[in-house]
Amino acid sequence: MAVQKPTTPKGTRDFSPEEMAKRNYIFNTIRSVYELYGFHCIETPAMEQLSTLMGKYGDEGDKLLFKILNSGDFLAPLSEEELLSRQSARLTGRLSEKGLRYDLTVPFARYVVMHRNDISFPFKRYQIQPVWRADRPQKGRYREFYQCDADVVGSDSLMNEVELLQIIDEVFSRFGVRISIKLNNRKILSGIAQILGQEEHLTEITVAIDKLDKIGLDKVNEELAGNGVPPQAIERLQPILGLQGDNAAKLEQLKRLLAASCDGLKGIEELEYIMDTLACTPLRSQLEIDLSLARGLNYYTGTIIEVKALDVVMGSIAGGGRYDNLTGVFGLPGVSGVGISFGADRIFDVLNQLDLYPASSLSHTQVLFANFGDKETRYCLPLIAALRQAGIRTELYPDAGKLKKQFSYADDHRIALMAIAGENEINEHKIQIKDMQTGRQESLASQQLVARVKELLSV
Amino acid sequence: MAVQKPTTPKGTRDFSPEEMAKRNYIFNTIRSVYELYGFHCIETPAMEQLSTLMGKYGDEGDKLLFKILNSGDFLAPLSEEELLSRQSARLTGRLSEKGLRYDLTVPFARYVVMHRNDISFPFKRYQIQPVWRADRPQKGRYREFYQCDADVVGSDSLMNEVELLQIIDEVFSRFGVRISIKLNNRKILSGIAQILGQEEHLTEITVAIDKLDKIGLDKVNEELAGNGVPPQAIERLQPILGLQGDNAAKLEQLKRLLAASCDGLKGIEELEYIMDTLACTPLRSQLEIDLSLARGLNYYTGTIIEVKALDVVMGSIAGGGRYDNLTGVFGLPGVSGVGISFGADRIFDVLNQLDLYPASSLSHTQVLFANFGDKETRYCLPLIAALRQAGIRTELYPDAGKLKKQFSYADDHRIALMAIAGENEINEHKIQIKDMQTGRQESLASQQLVARVKELLSV
Repeated sequence: MAVQKPTTPKGTRDFSPEEMAKRNYIFNTIRSVYELYGFHCIETPAMEQLSTLMGKYGDEGDKLLFKILNSGDFLAPLSEEELLSRQSARLTGRLSEKGLRYDLTVPFARYVVMHRNDISFPFKRYQIQPVWRADRPQKGRYREFYQCDADVVGSDSLMNEVELLQIIDEVFSRFGVRISIKLNNRKILSGIAQILGQEEHLTEITVAIDKLDKIGLDKVNEELAGNGVPPQAIERLQPILGLQGDNAAKLEQLKRLLAASCDGLKGIEELEYIMDTLACTPLRSQLEIDLSLARGLNYYTGTIIEVKALDVVMGSIAGGGRYDNLTGVFGLPGVSGVGISFGADRIFDVLNQLDLYPASSLSHTQVLFANFGDKETRYCLPLIAALRQAGIRTELYPDAGKLKKQFSYADDHRIALMAIAGENEINEHKIQIKDMQTGRQESLASQQLVARVKELLSV
Repeated sequence: MAVQKPTTPKGTRDFSPEEMAKRNYIFNTIRSVYELYGFHCIETPAMEQLSTLMGKYGDEGDKLLFKILNSGDFLAPLSEEELLSRQSARLTGRLSEKGLRYDLTVPFARYVVMHRNDISFPFKRYQIQPVWRADRPQKGRYREFYQCDADVVGSDSLMNEVELLQIIDEVFSRFGVRISIKLNNRKILSGIAQILGQEEHLTEITVAIDKLDKIGLDKVNEELAGNGVPPQAIERLQPILGLQGDNAAKLEQLKRLLAASCDGLKGIEELEYIMDTLACTPLRSQLEIDLSLARGLNYYTGTIIEVKALDVVMGSIAGGGRYDNLTGVFGLPGVSGVGISFGADRIFDVLNQLDLYPASSLSHTQVLFANFGDKETRYCLPLIAALRQAGIRTELYPDAGKLKKQFSYADDHRIALMAIAGENEINEHKIQIKDMQTGRQESLASQQLVARVKELLSV
């Protein structure tokens, strides 16, 4: 067979042991907080029927789905005319009936509908799995990446929002990352458009508000005018764009400004309820009402959440919101959901930049036994077994070779201790322990090994 | 949008919270034993270049690869002639350049070659990820399933075999599953064919030996003759087929019978070394030399391992072996590897049949707070926070509704305790705790809650 120079597909990555240890630290932290709050893990297949996926992510999304070529004689069903038309987009559905999941939300909606008779609602699920998008790869954007979602479906209660915000606060507190949580409500955005008489321009108005920080008030007003928002509406928008003060002050001003909009007042009431309830057990994170927050405008119907790291320049590292009709497209109307998602890849970068991985998360081997040959190895085997029995991650260097090579293996793998037994140690029922960090070496009776290793490792 | 009746693709599965809890128990057990023995986790992408995958699994395997349709205008590169030929198999490579991984071994080989300059050998990696095969689905055979592999590459030492067998023993001992580990060595099988002068019939001979248990000696001999093995070779095979006694006795007889084959004697020596070394810290599992074991004959070059459950009728639930040229096809010759793999789906079935899941593995919510409305909820919030702070998995029922519904939610989710606070409890700074198993209810001062819950849950 010809020799191949191997590569991974564009936009995908291998993860080395060190990277995996860090990633698993992130996943496990998120997982244990989710479980602490009563969320349960589900998994769905990597592949879904294309009919489940298509039309859920817009035209652009449909293009970015990875499609699986049908097995067997996939060209047979196509007519000559179709083949010669070479209309790839139109013929995709004839050559492929399955695709890779694009996010975890649509498969979850499909899951809820398929299994509704087995689910006791409210259903609190979390899901940590990869998703795939045929996007153009660039820095920080991959074609395969993990999502870490938690959602509650079948409950309209704002207590769900409260708990999801507590989860965000707890997760980043465990990571040691200082964050700001930005909150908005789709109903407030609708209310603004309503009182301006510009409901048809909701998107343009929110997009413009979103740019306030970056381009300044004058440019925002120019952009609004350019998008066909009339001058008197822009005029009325000014006090909203200029909203000042802390969260309570902002809400008070908004209440006056949106007094004529039922939707707007409802949104304010929801935000107030969430803030008041959170005050019973205050968050460690900053919580900031931010009207410019407009993520997921095409599906969120209530609360909108976005999380930014305070000490690193980075896009949002978590987010979420409430959507009112998760499962309607699959034939189950009236199921409200609210959820959050952590961006594992960005959190990975944040923890790297801030050097926040705890040493214990890296799960290096703790003790390496040097290998001097069969006789020495057989002397060591019961000692190795005893350490493992005590839960100490222990290796025997598999080959009897140069000690230097064995030591450099220990260095490369950041192994804390080396255990060494030669002729003398065997005769005296002893073992040498070398602390690879300090270089200190000591000799001890073999039956003291487990206790002494635990001391040295402080476990 | 039209309402769709949602399904999952043929041969794929959703996993419910209860199934996931069980699966994660299996994965976590395997993972922690792997780490205890100094194996480190890596992950590779779900997609590989088709050039990496094709030709590695035989013609049948190539057909069973899931191929990803190229993005964009995938039909454009095909000529009219090609299109009209409708030769699906021949044109696959023009329409698709990526496939889903079929196992973890080939991606691992690709990984080792790509990252060889960053790896400190011997490299001990484990990998727990799904693989995909377009096989005809049937009972116990899926198109998406997990593999749980551990391999050591870059070491010829038989100590690796010893440790991998210890890992198998430890994992199933933790599961509480009694097993028999069957051992063979490819070199012994070669030796048998050699001394019969039938090296070209190695496969037929091993396949026939494999059937001894099922079809009996006479039929085996018939089959050998039918496959062109001459009578005198069949005659000489009889003492091997009739091998009796324990492992030591079998090895003694084999040594005499294979005295004329260097390969055969080498295989016996390897088996003896493994058995002798294991005797230093005896396994809890049965260990049985089984010449009929011939799995992976086309890639294993030394030790062959297979694991069967003793108390359940089920195919092999783990296996492995040594292969001498893992990475040659990717341009890195001379790298020997030895590995094992646990069959998570079959282990799942075994643990179900034997009812061996520990209660603690199911990670149910431990305390559910009833919801009587905003006032009561605000009283409960600091108590809920205190329980979570203490690591107790705690939920607040999100909606203030009928208590009956809340109780049945607790039942459905097998939640151990319910916490209830109404008007009276708030006034007296108390809380009611109901044990959902016994039905016993008690009232206690709210500051005693954490301690009492820990007592009741024995945590």
